[in-house]
Amino acid sequence: MSIPQITLYGLPDIPRVRAGDDVAQLILEALKRAELTLLDGDVVVITHKIVSKAEGCAVRLTDVEPSPQAIALAAETNKDPRLVEVILRSSRGVVRQREGTLIMETRHGWVCANAGVDRSNVSGPEGEIALTLPEDPDASARRIREKLLAATGADVAVIISDTHGRAWRLGTVNVAIGVAGMLPIADLRGQTDMFGYTLRVTTVARADELAAAAGLVIGQAAEGLPVVVIRGAAYPRGDGRATEMQRPVEKDLFR
Amino acid sequence: MSIPQITLYGLPDIPRVRAGDDVAQLILEALKRAELTLLDGDVVVITHKIVSKAEGCAVRLTDVEPSPQAIALAAETNKDPRLVEVILRSSRGVVRQREGTLIMETRHGWVCANAGVDRSNVSGPEGEIALTLPEDPDASARRIREKLLAATGADVAVIISDTHGRAWRLGTVNVAIGVAGMLPIADLRGQTDMFGYTLRVTTVARADELAAAAGLVIGQAAEGLPVVVIRGAAYPRGDGRATEMQRPVEKDLFR
Repeated sequence: MSIPQITLYGLPDIPRVRAGDDVAQLILEALKRAELTLLDGDVVVITHKIVSKAEGCAVRLTDVEPSPQAIALAAETNKDPRLVEVILRSSRGVVRQREGTLIMETRHGWVCANAGVDRSNVSGPEGEIALTLPEDPDASARRIREKLLAATGADVAVIISDTHGRAWRLGTVNVAIGVAGMLPIADLRGQTDMFGYTLRVTTVARADELAAAAGLVIGQAAEGLPVVVIRGAAYPRGDGRATEMQRPVEKDLFR
Repeated sequence: MSIPQITLYGLPDIPRVRAGDDVAQLILEALKRAELTLLDGDVVVITHKIVSKAEGCAVRLTDVEPSPQAIALAAETNKDPRLVEVILRSSRGVVRQREGTLIMETRHGWVCANAGVDRSNVSGPEGEIALTLPEDPDASARRIREKLLAATGADVAVIISDTHGRAWRLGTVNVAIGVAGMLPIADLRGQTDMFGYTLRVTTVARADELAAAAGLVIGQAAEGLPVVVIRGAAYPRGDGRATEMQRPVEKDLFR
């Protein structure tokens, strides 16, 4: 009997990414080494960290001059004023603040801790580094998709992911902050569920489900795999943007 | 080259579930038909709908007598008073209300629309049905896990899932509302990330990632597959409860 099946492959041996690197090229080389061929309908999920690094989004904190606003907000939340300066530059504004916590709306419109800015705590010649989100993750996803398509001929979707906390649930999950070659939301209106009932839930955040699934492979640790290929998943094709998943402020009950 | 790999299998031909059915037995029979053998470390994700049905959580709306509170809340939100009565019985209280929308805290402590109550709009001899969440999804997961373990000898984790909306993101994703044989949250404290930095994010909602991944298979539609077997995913073993993922009210910035 044929069983419906989805497979996730973690691409091994993606090298450490530097500013200026071509992420699509690194993926193509890793695919070749892994003897994995992209197929039409595959989804390539990429953690934003390597995209941010390639796009030069690493900021040395010693180079950052905090503004008076950053200094005040850092004092209120007990954070590093230089880090808060980087967060503020990445943000439209503060959604919630508390000791040790800054929930921000990013420039792109995502609501998340620290505007998605990751901080290293390596102390080396570079000093401490803050890594911001890509300038336009949807555009990053489109560029990578076009290169993968040109090189392989495979009509794949690309997702750029980040790990977000949730309002009422502990722990983070991977979510999509950029997509290409797909619509982020699957619209199931008019379909019936497995009991023959018309669906109450009509929109599924397919891009977030795909990103969360990839999170199982990506991990967060030393052996992390920053690129995951998902094969066999159904998703709506099209020229979508991850930002279509942002709940409009006028429909937001929790801001 | 060996590639890290996770596979999701949708179990075909799970029959329509009725009150009193043994969900573990239905799964065992479907596994046999599919010629799929459970292995140690597999995760069995089950949509709550079939667990709720088996546990007799279907309520005929014609049998429901709405309380004065339900009638008032129904008028304020433009909902069916009988449905609101079922929602209130399933809840600790209202988190947010608006025309057409009721965000509730369920008896178990989950924050979600309509306290997780699904409404059919089938008109048949039974009339309209409201399906509530299982009484104790963690206990349901444990019962099913014990039966699967006894029958197969495989030390699997079991997740009961539901589809939830999110505060700032459109579309639903599958989340875990019951677990057994695992800890819902993976604690990565002290580990370093792929760049050698100590992790900023230290807790990952592994059970929710697994549930979201299963959501890619489960679907919401007629061809839906209510049970998914996930093979090859790393997760913390242990005697955990999904309710451990509930953010304590005193740490909740959005209520």
